[in-house]
Amino acid sequence: MNIPVILGLLGRLLIVYAGAMSIPLVLALALEEWSRLAFLLSVFLTLLTGLVFARQAKLTEMKIGVREAFGSVVGAWILASLFGALPFQFADVVPTYIDAVFETVSGLTTTGASVIPDVESLPQSILLWRSLTHWLGGMGIIVLFIVLLPKTDLGTVLLFNAEVPGPTHDRVMPRIRDTAITLWKIYLIFTAICTLLLWSAGMTFLDAVNNSFATIATGGFSTKNTSIMFYDSLAIEMILSFFMIVSGANFVIYLTIWRKKSLKPFRNTELITYLLIILGSTLVIAGSLWFNIGESPLLAVRHALFQVSSIITTTGYASADFDLWPSMTKIILFLLMFIGGSAGSTSGGIKVSRIILLAKKTWAELKRGIHPRVISGIKLDGKVIDTETLNRVGIFFFLYIVTFAGASILIAGTGLKPFDAMSAVAATLGNVGPGFGFVGPTTTFAGINLFGKAVLTVCMLVGRLEFFTLLIIFRREFWRRQKTW
Amino acid sequence: MNIPVILGLLGRLLIVYAGAMSIPLVLALALEEWSRLAFLLSVFLTLLTGLVFARQAKLTEMKIGVREAFGSVVGAWILASLFGALPFQFADVVPTYIDAVFETVSGLTTTGASVIPDVESLPQSILLWRSLTHWLGGMGIIVLFIVLLPKTDLGTVLLFNAEVPGPTHDRVMPRIRDTAITLWKIYLIFTAICTLLLWSAGMTFLDAVNNSFATIATGGFSTKNTSIMFYDSLAIEMILSFFMIVSGANFVIYLTIWRKKSLKPFRNTELITYLLIILGSTLVIAGSLWFNIGESPLLAVRHALFQVSSIITTTGYASADFDLWPSMTKIILFLLMFIGGSAGSTSGGIKVSRIILLAKKTWAELKRGIHPRVISGIKLDGKVIDTETLNRVGIFFFLYIVTFAGASILIAGTGLKPFDAMSAVAATLGNVGPGFGFVGPTTTFAGINLFGKAVLTVCMLVGRLEFFTLLIIFRREFWRRQKTW
Repeated sequence: MNIPVILGLLGRLLIVYAGAMSIPLVLALALEEWSRLAFLLSVFLTLLTGLVFARQAKLTEMKIGVREAFGSVVGAWILASLFGALPFQFADVVPTYIDAVFETVSGLTTTGASVIPDVESLPQSILLWRSLTHWLGGMGIIVLFIVLLPKTDLGTVLLFNAEVPGPTHDRVMPRIRDTAITLWKIYLIFTAICTLLLWSAGMTFLDAVNNSFATIATGGFSTKNTSIMFYDSLAIEMILSFFMIVSGANFVIYLTIWRKKSLKPFRNTELITYLLIILGSTLVIAGSLWFNIGESPLLAVRHALFQVSSIITTTGYASADFDLWPSMTKIILFLLMFIGGSAGSTSGGIKVSRIILLAKKTWAELKRGIHPRVISGIKLDGKVIDTETLNRVGIFFFLYIVTFAGASILIAGTGLKPFDAMSAVAATLGNVGPGFGFVGPTTTFAGINLFGKAVLTVCMLVGRLEFFTLLIIFRREFWRRQKTW
Repeated sequence: MNIPVILGLLGRLLIVYAGAMSIPLVLALALEEWSRLAFLLSVFLTLLTGLVFARQAKLTEMKIGVREAFGSVVGAWILASLFGALPFQFADVVPTYIDAVFETVSGLTTTGASVIPDVESLPQSILLWRSLTHWLGGMGIIVLFIVLLPKTDLGTVLLFNAEVPGPTHDRVMPRIRDTAITLWKIYLIFTAICTLLLWSAGMTFLDAVNNSFATIATGGFSTKNTSIMFYDSLAIEMILSFFMIVSGANFVIYLTIWRKKSLKPFRNTELITYLLIILGSTLVIAGSLWFNIGESPLLAVRHALFQVSSIITTTGYASADFDLWPSMTKIILFLLMFIGGSAGSTSGGIKVSRIILLAKKTWAELKRGIHPRVISGIKLDGKVIDTETLNRVGIFFFLYIVTFAGASILIAGTGLKPFDAMSAVAATLGNVGPGFGFVGPTTTFAGINLFGKAVLTVCMLVGRLEFFTLLIIFRREFWRRQKTW
């Protein structure tokens, strides 16, 4: 592994990051908020570190191999978390630095779990920074970096692969930088439309921007203590539901539509399955709300649709206190936290396409139980999926469940009840946000002890980087200096 | 699929089964219990059906292919469940026939979940039949059948494979009938020793027999309403712990020791891992019982060891009301329900060897992330594991979790709280027995509605037959009449 190259990349990234941090600084200065000094200091420290790191390697001399790519992505997320926490720390809105890091990681990984009980007391600049971490992390800080880098072949494919979620994204591989730029354009357009709609539906402009960032990134940080319940507006809930569902779909679909000017890409197995899961869960939950707690059919559908889209896209907004809902609806929401949205979206979780591939593999294997000599390839949308990808999907599933199990023990050890603890882990590992009970939709993660917060911070990062990128650095081979291949 | 061949096999099996049912009949006659008529009628009906079925095909004309093997095994378990339920139904100890089937399936699959709240009021013959279903199901009703069949090559390998749990049992493949006989000898010897020890530790002889059956089969039906808490005896708990752990290990190990007269087979990765999981869980739980609820260190270890061995071997005995234990210990016990014992044991769950293989595969895959061109085989105890087995293990894990998730929704729909519902499913799918809360160690499954009981009955069967055998009958190819290979 070439450490100077990684430092050089990370330094340039920090400089860009300091630029992003200047946006809330400008807001703080404009509104003369007391948080302006906190932002000034944070921007200064981030910029300074960035400049020092950037001097370690010249852009033209960099050679990025597999290990440098993994190292840079992991390093980027860790540095962005540590430096992004500075404004919260300096503005003194959290009790400890661990809380500040938790809040930042929760933002960058688009989880949306908060340790700040009273967000309505925060200055606008801090609220904007929280939403901005969502927005930057949603499309990926590395993908943003690729966009901003001068046009060189710096192993961008490797960097892109190590960060973008989902089992397959080979369709976007050629012209990676162009792709990244188009993806950001689409992302910006969605954000702009969502902001305008929310503004016209009655939100203040700043609230509209914040909620738009949190929605398109499927993050879920709210500017109100009672999340979306505060507005009690059907229009706002419908706008948010729509954009959450849009953002939980594969952005490659929008990319292809953009490039080919055709609606054919909508005929996509993952997209259809994802929409069917939303439809099915909404109907079952609405039925339960109607029968079991006597909500009117229309209100039941409204509540069910919003909550299902919020959870499956791993946004984590709440339009009702679903912690008080019937047991079955809670289990369904709990399981949706594991499924998550589509590959190549801003959402977390296992991803619908992985579930589809595992189901197809299982069905094929049952056939082999009867005809052992028949070998049939597994296809998705007419394309044969190679064994390597299928293997990885199986391992990913195993890692996901094992991590969930291990972290649940640790969180239960901090005193949470079994289901509360499991929901806290599922909600952070899947980058959702709120869970049930102690960490339910009307409460925050503030009550969990520091050890628990550290564990959940790791869960959020592991979930966002989808294990491989993070775990690979624990292999001995990763740390060898010489290139052996 | 050749239906007459399957019926011929199943008929002979029912005749054997009627013979087993005669044992409690004899006891009922000897003790002049009112349940004797119930047993008489049940034996008669089972025998009659067996004789009618057996006439469908002659033993010498039978050809058993893959589909006939799967069909027979599934048919055998369904018929054994339906006919085994007759004594409970006729003796009127359960409210409905579905309850009777639940109790029988719980016995045969060695689950040990009961729908009879007051077992102490049952006649001895009924108690013996409950324990006997454990004992017959533990080693496998088909494996017993292979032993009792005349020496013909009836596709016994296929039958054996379709029933015996675990990812690999190729080491026992040659001379399958001899193997089955030796396995039953070992099984009998363990049962005899356990009975004698329990008797000498203060149990009545019949209690000792019943508990020995339930222990060696890792079943867990108790003859007392408060399970093992009733005896409050360190000696009995130690004897049971020891034999539960012994029965949760791979019987192929004992078989090899028996044949080769060497202790080398103990150097087995799965066995060592299994023992380490027991040791680790015991220490952590004992620590928690000591620190969090102030039990003395010795009592904490005693409680922890018994409960850990009871749950990981999927027996399900309780020596303390672990539903009142700290949250973390509950999550650990809950997760142990998923792990289960070793392959080729009488226990349920995913099995330790499958977890080991998945962990090894994951570690190897991380290496490939760095060196994509290196392909390294995965070994277990010096033997390379083929890709097909690894694939199946991954699929098994996926099926296990998906079934757990789906059934949890249905059980939560019957009104159980989320964690209670999940524990009820984990405890039946893993063939453990008691769960937490509504189905905790001091209560029974009697309070769950009939729909819920039906769902959990399917879970027990699916868990025992490890999916493939049961699911394969849902493939269209299975039902084709002509042989295509």
